[in-house]
Amino acid sequence: MSFTIQNALIPLASGYATVDVRIEADRIAAIAPHLEPVGTVIDGQNKLLLPGFFNAHTHSSEFWQRGMIPPYPLELWLAELYDFTLFSPEQIYLSALATAAETLLSGGTCVVDHLVLIPGQEEETIAAAARAYEEIGIRAFIGPLIQDASLTESIPSGGKLLEHQPYARTTQETLSLMERAIDRFHRPEAGIHLMLAPTGMQLCSDALFEGCVTLSDRYQLCCHTHLLETRAQQLLAQEKYGYSAVQHLKHLGFLTPHTSLAHCVWLDDADIEILSETRSTVVHNPLSNLRLGSGVAPILKYRQAGVNVTFGCDGSASNDGQDLLEAIKIGTLLHNVTDTDYRHWISPREAIEMASLGGATGLNLAEQTGSLTVGKKADLVLYDLTNLSLLPRTDPIGLLVMGRPASAVAQVWVNGQTVVAKGKVQTIDVDLLRQEIFDRSQWQTNRQSAMVQQVEAHYRSVMGLLDDES
Amino acid sequence: MSFTIQNALIPLASGYATVDVRIEADRIAAIAPHLEPVGTVIDGQNKLLLPGFFNAHTHSSEFWQRGMIPPYPLELWLAELYDFTLFSPEQIYLSALATAAETLLSGGTCVVDHLVLIPGQEEETIAAAARAYEEIGIRAFIGPLIQDASLTESIPSGGKLLEHQPYARTTQETLSLMERAIDRFHRPEAGIHLMLAPTGMQLCSDALFEGCVTLSDRYQLCCHTHLLETRAQQLLAQEKYGYSAVQHLKHLGFLTPHTSLAHCVWLDDADIEILSETRSTVVHNPLSNLRLGSGVAPILKYRQAGVNVTFGCDGSASNDGQDLLEAIKIGTLLHNVTDTDYRHWISPREAIEMASLGGATGLNLAEQTGSLTVGKKADLVLYDLTNLSLLPRTDPIGLLVMGRPASAVAQVWVNGQTVVAKGKVQTIDVDLLRQEIFDRSQWQTNRQSAMVQQVEAHYRSVMGLLDDES
Repeated sequence: MSFTIQNALIPLASGYATVDVRIEADRIAAIAPHLEPVGTVIDGQNKLLLPGFFNAHTHSSEFWQRGMIPPYPLELWLAELYDFTLFSPEQIYLSALATAAETLLSGGTCVVDHLVLIPGQEEETIAAAARAYEEIGIRAFIGPLIQDASLTESIPSGGKLLEHQPYARTTQETLSLMERAIDRFHRPEAGIHLMLAPTGMQLCSDALFEGCVTLSDRYQLCCHTHLLETRAQQLLAQEKYGYSAVQHLKHLGFLTPHTSLAHCVWLDDADIEILSETRSTVVHNPLSNLRLGSGVAPILKYRQAGVNVTFGCDGSASNDGQDLLEAIKIGTLLHNVTDTDYRHWISPREAIEMASLGGATGLNLAEQTGSLTVGKKADLVLYDLTNLSLLPRTDPIGLLVMGRPASAVAQVWVNGQTVVAKGKVQTIDVDLLRQEIFDRSQWQTNRQSAMVQQVEAHYRSVMGLLDDES
Repeated sequence: MSFTIQNALIPLASGYATVDVRIEADRIAAIAPHLEPVGTVIDGQNKLLLPGFFNAHTHSSEFWQRGMIPPYPLELWLAELYDFTLFSPEQIYLSALATAAETLLSGGTCVVDHLVLIPGQEEETIAAAARAYEEIGIRAFIGPLIQDASLTESIPSGGKLLEHQPYARTTQETLSLMERAIDRFHRPEAGIHLMLAPTGMQLCSDALFEGCVTLSDRYQLCCHTHLLETRAQQLLAQEKYGYSAVQHLKHLGFLTPHTSLAHCVWLDDADIEILSETRSTVVHNPLSNLRLGSGVAPILKYRQAGVNVTFGCDGSASNDGQDLLEAIKIGTLLHNVTDTDYRHWISPREAIEMASLGGATGLNLAEQTGSLTVGKKADLVLYDLTNLSLLPRTDPIGLLVMGRPASAVAQVWVNGQTVVAKGKVQTIDVDLLRQEIFDRSQWQTNRQSAMVQQVEAHYRSVMGLLDDES
């Protein structure tokens, strides 16, 4: 199918132009003023056309827990999260749909789902997420969240001898599971990519990382992991390796141009040099880093070192939403307080490029998508510039990034297919989705996690927190 | 007119209850389950009822410049702002309507407009804003932005002898203007309050502050000012007074329980003690503080010292929107990275109270509004908990504060009057407003402010910024 977007505003290197954009099948075929219209004509007047953004790190199933977990640092927050009764594959399907819908309605055309697996139903979990993403029509990278250590091992021991439960699945079983999953679900031509995504150094053995590298090489897949999200993880890396986690991942061969690393809050200058040298991508999740008190990632330093940076919403239980424009805004403005020289600050146009081409680069897709370029895939978003939140007519990209767009996404295409039109998702029934989610949840407060009580005293002691209020 | 909201969810000290709420004239008359319905019945089922929030610091006219000013620190950003050709009273009217509309649709029922005055049309400016707020039906505090020094005086001299243009209006003329404005426009019974709002110590003489204190006493009005927003202002206070700006404002009698202070980023412990002792209110504007690189206000310290804190969006050219829920979210989460002990972090319920009762307290209205209390004014907001952004049904206040509510405000009453219903402003035609704003603006980029060029070299030198890229 072909169509032509007429009279849309697009950004040039400087300023804007009004152009027509012709899409043929799944690709951008032409961009120029006054094209001969081919196929359906889409009115782009008073609209801004941009490449789709990447929600480059999330955990879709956390949707079910959003709003619920009190303000805790990651290590205690995780204890709450894991305490929650999990999930049927049907719930996974619904939360993947909801995650995709919120991403699409905030300018995203691709989601990286670091997917929590239901124990004993691992393949059904991946199948459910893949089905959701294919139905709604978003481009998706699914990185099953794998580990081979139990949660208590993710907290530094502080020199104490602690006993840990063995993890439910062996390293080799996990790698076999991944290989089966790749075989069943990796279908880039349908917009569904699998990736190798060990949870992080705090919960994974060297053997698991190395096994992932092997599979990544064998199947030409991207890698993804959490990296140094918290100060506790920095302490743990010192305990575990005696040196930096980044150095260790480099030694394991995990850092490559198709590896993206969520968070990267606690890296030092030598670590940053390694990311630059290995051409790894940092996925900045500013909102969860604030919510969990993890810290402010040194994003301006990454950019100065030439490290590719893009944005993620992170899972909905640590944010607690999937508004990609909000992640881009806060991920851009937050760093203005980390460097007094405003000449280093991220401009709105740079933010847009980080969110689009930066995301594509980290997923080895920069040749395929991430910019308004003839020949690239038509992953496109049209913003309504007559929406109150994008008025007055000043600098549309300035307002899109630094403002608070509300229902401003008019139309979205992924792979040349219409996914959103007139501000509504067209491919699924969102009202039905809301009803299903409503029916499967119940307002509640005052959850008390037994697991938090188990780990809190140790956490406070290792992190040097005084019990001034107990 | 009376009405009854049936079966709404409201927060209790712990957990939630489903109740009916009866409003008689402008007041809450009863809150209890299964009330005998009186007047119109409003369906509150699957909705959360909260007191309206306060957008406790903004500058409505900046709406016209939003999206436009590049990432600059306050002092250079102001040079861009002032370079913009101002405004007719009609534009002031439109931007006040737009500011109020965005505030209402994000949970606000009261706005504090630190109003930029059109030179030579000062009273017309105030009249236009007052007319807008009365028409749309939001409770409004208008603090005409007054000063008696020119902009260049707001940048520390660094010991250099600088020449400044005299300000266009004398101190006495400004105070006379304020007295006329109070006489004409201060009508609390109509929901329009005037306040005394000198711009800040960086642009105001002692005589202007003292004149404001006198008028505040004479007419029983609130006071408002910017306070130590930037490091440059802290340096300037040292140059100007030889000691802290907070001490100085205290000596001038400006700090009282009905004084609210926007920003308060650069205060030390002794300053915080003064705010506590004088029972002044801090208005936290987290988004503009990030956008302008001003810093992170020590909000957790304020709370520990017992200082009342509430939230503002700040003007739309430094944010660049008026989504109060966004200001509350970021103003809550941001501080988790400033204190490793999560027991000091602000909980969602505390954030809600800061935004409602905290706002009322700073405006000397805590007896009148700011909580769901029988006898108080009916300034109420009903949130639709079936909205996708407030699903699943977990902890509604957790999700409202830490999530990203999108079009979640269903109904708003101010003073017992319906202002928003079914998610739409009822009192004005927002589509017509959008059209007017569209017609009066033009997309543009690459503005070059001559004023920035004038002050930038001096600013960089005083702030110790190296010209590494020039």
